[in-house]
Amino acid sequence: MSLPVPSALATDLYQLTMMAGYEATGHVATSTFELAVRALPASRRYLMAAGLAQALDYLEGLRFTPDEIAWLRTVPALAAAPVRFFDEVLPAFRFTGEVWAMDEGEIAFAHEPLVRVTAPMMEAQIVETALLAILTFQTSVASKASRVVSAAAGRMVVEFGSRRAHGLEAACLAARAACLAGCAATSNVEAGRMFDLPLTGTMAHSWVMEFDDEIEAFRQYLGLFGEQSTLLIDTYDTLKAAERIVAAGLRPSAVRLDSGDLGSLSRAVRAILDAGGLPETRILVSGDLDEHRVAALVADRAPIDAFGVGTSISAVSDAPALGGVYKLVETVRDGQAVPTVKLSPGKRTYPGRKQVWRIGSGTAERDVIGLEHESMREGRPLLSCVMRQGKRLRAASSVMEMSFGARARLSELPVVTSIDGDEKYPVAISPALDSLARDAARAHGA
Amino acid sequence: MSLPVPSALATDLYQLTMMAGYEATGHVATSTFELAVRALPASRRYLMAAGLAQALDYLEGLRFTPDEIAWLRTVPALAAAPVRFFDEVLPAFRFTGEVWAMDEGEIAFAHEPLVRVTAPMMEAQIVETALLAILTFQTSVASKASRVVSAAAGRMVVEFGSRRAHGLEAACLAARAACLAGCAATSNVEAGRMFDLPLTGTMAHSWVMEFDDEIEAFRQYLGLFGEQSTLLIDTYDTLKAAERIVAAGLRPSAVRLDSGDLGSLSRAVRAILDAGGLPETRILVSGDLDEHRVAALVADRAPIDAFGVGTSISAVSDAPALGGVYKLVETVRDGQAVPTVKLSPGKRTYPGRKQVWRIGSGTAERDVIGLEHESMREGRPLLSCVMRQGKRLRAASSVMEMSFGARARLSELPVVTSIDGDEKYPVAISPALDSLARDAARAHGA
Repeated sequence: MSLPVPSALATDLYQLTMMAGYEATGHVATSTFELAVRALPASRRYLMAAGLAQALDYLEGLRFTPDEIAWLRTVPALAAAPVRFFDEVLPAFRFTGEVWAMDEGEIAFAHEPLVRVTAPMMEAQIVETALLAILTFQTSVASKASRVVSAAAGRMVVEFGSRRAHGLEAACLAARAACLAGCAATSNVEAGRMFDLPLTGTMAHSWVMEFDDEIEAFRQYLGLFGEQSTLLIDTYDTLKAAERIVAAGLRPSAVRLDSGDLGSLSRAVRAILDAGGLPETRILVSGDLDEHRVAALVADRAPIDAFGVGTSISAVSDAPALGGVYKLVETVRDGQAVPTVKLSPGKRTYPGRKQVWRIGSGTAERDVIGLEHESMREGRPLLSCVMRQGKRLRAASSVMEMSFGARARLSELPVVTSIDGDEKYPVAISPALDSLARDAARAHGA
Repeated sequence: MSLPVPSALATDLYQLTMMAGYEATGHVATSTFELAVRALPASRRYLMAAGLAQALDYLEGLRFTPDEIAWLRTVPALAAAPVRFFDEVLPAFRFTGEVWAMDEGEIAFAHEPLVRVTAPMMEAQIVETALLAILTFQTSVASKASRVVSAAAGRMVVEFGSRRAHGLEAACLAARAACLAGCAATSNVEAGRMFDLPLTGTMAHSWVMEFDDEIEAFRQYLGLFGEQSTLLIDTYDTLKAAERIVAAGLRPSAVRLDSGDLGSLSRAVRAILDAGGLPETRILVSGDLDEHRVAALVADRAPIDAFGVGTSISAVSDAPALGGVYKLVETVRDGQAVPTVKLSPGKRTYPGRKQVWRIGSGTAERDVIGLEHESMREGRPLLSCVMRQGKRLRAASSVMEMSFGARARLSELPVVTSIDGDEKYPVAISPALDSLARDAARAHGA
């Protein structure tokens, strides 16, 4: 199962005009682009890389269909493109390049390439928009969800945010990234099927409202789905509902609180359930939760067994976009590799094909961003080759499997795991890269 | 052209368990749900409704495929569903209901239903997640884009945000909603094709970096695409690039500034172009723009002809999710329509099938939310019937056509158009609705 492969037209117009331009001007040599996040949002201390499987699906499936090509011929901005662009280049177009990338679930910092693409200029260029959208969205969700999971300090977090996601594809991918980052389950059925994620769900207020009487609604649900069900008890009055459940002799596996002061309500509900002989009935809470509210409830020792988190994860409410960029770092001129650089104020890039090393054993001490072929005496290189000649080198792992790796990698970085510390994890530029950057800037008069 | 219809599995698990539950318990009567936004984000003064065409596509196309049904039989949470649920209900399932909705481009406020769905309980329930995700996302983008367009005060705004959207479907739909709200064009090629939107584009920094010399990069581009091209001039040094364009005798239709202090740079570039005999060359600026930065540049009389806006529109940076809810407002018990209500703290709903009237001629004075069948002596009803028995009543209009209507409707509401006023537009509850709400609350002991 996988999502439909995006259309080759899912891109910015300028990618196509530039592509035609590279073809027309003979800029067909191999070039290298790197995708990185320029700066972390203020509310993030690290990124968790995600979305690589979908990025590789996109690259492997990239084709222009005859219909699309026929339509492109009618686009005024492409009127000047050489005829062979439509007749030969687009019909035969495939991505044939090499891709190095961080594993999904790897922890990353600003300026560290998440992905490096080396391919003929046209191929490396056209994929920019899609790679950015695919990779930075899931990375953004995983980075947020990872914080919520850390805040829950071992209690279960489940992802409930499909309705607040940016459409249904985003809902499905957000569920994937959330589970990668450590959520125990999602409510998104499509994501469950597509990515083999554990599914979870309770009931909606409408189920309760549809019945004349709340207890009757609960009884019918338990009658059908058995005592493994979670009852939503805040439709009218949370505490009365808990008391009525006890009085009616219902034995749900869990109850869900979705509004009000979750700390005091969870205590009161716990007391009612315990006094009523339901000490095993768990309490799930939801309602505009994020890592800060979860951490406060945990610190307050609220008797909560699980957190259902929606909007803050699926729409990444506090940092809905990462400053992801995909920049040319090396091209070939007259057969020679030439490192390239951009000098725009606040948006400078580092030239050359890079690697990132994480240094330290057990606990990471620092990262070094250096040039691909530097020999480092220590450290784990974070980028590995995942695609050659347009073919992925290994099948994607399962998301739940990768999620174990993700939590393990995060555990090497205790300095950034706490949700509101302010100590920065050190990321250095290698002397060789630094010197290459100075040379490249000087070549453009800077 | 339209986007692939979402899978019926693009929903929350509980929709399916409840659906099975309604089937098992015989809750098959007609019910009515309404979709509304509970409160506007602090940074919004109104909403612009969007996404209805995709919502109706979804409802018309809703099917469970044999593959999906076979898989659903294996989902543990559905193990208790009656066999006929899989054998008969799901294979025959269609949406057969009636839908009332605000037009796309209509201006809406908190609590006003954007959409009202009346259908057999199972059908009305299952569509909740998808309708919320589809409608609130585009409404959220259109509401933001509309503010940016207002701030530009007649200068052109073009949407460039695909790479920062929440994946490629979101990018395409964000482009649609942005153009609906008044953006003059988008860079998203797929959206251009799918929704017949004007396309626009410049060049990437990589085009400039790929050439040995910036002027050579510009010359080649103009050589191919002609003087209608926009040159990106901030890769190395914005002012030097402008001077070199003049010195080289290039005559681009526009230049684009993408970094630095856009106010002072635009003035300096304007002066260089004017002095160099290029008074017709326009200036497009981009780089983390939102309505506030656009308004400041306009107030400062910066000589800017067009704004390229990305992240703030496509990811709706400052309010990436609306508090959209889809609530049961009426059901049928023993053949009688029964208004329903939810009383959770901070999340109360109004019962009954509603209509919204906008009162005032030329300039709107207030809205009244009332019951569908109330007879109002004045005012324009905002909800109309768009689907009956599961079939849409009229073909979707073109987005650019609807965008004229949208701006016209906004112009009736001068009180909320300015981006940072704080006067509230009055929205009242009709006496009949108010009294129904009290009765319904009393019935649940409130």
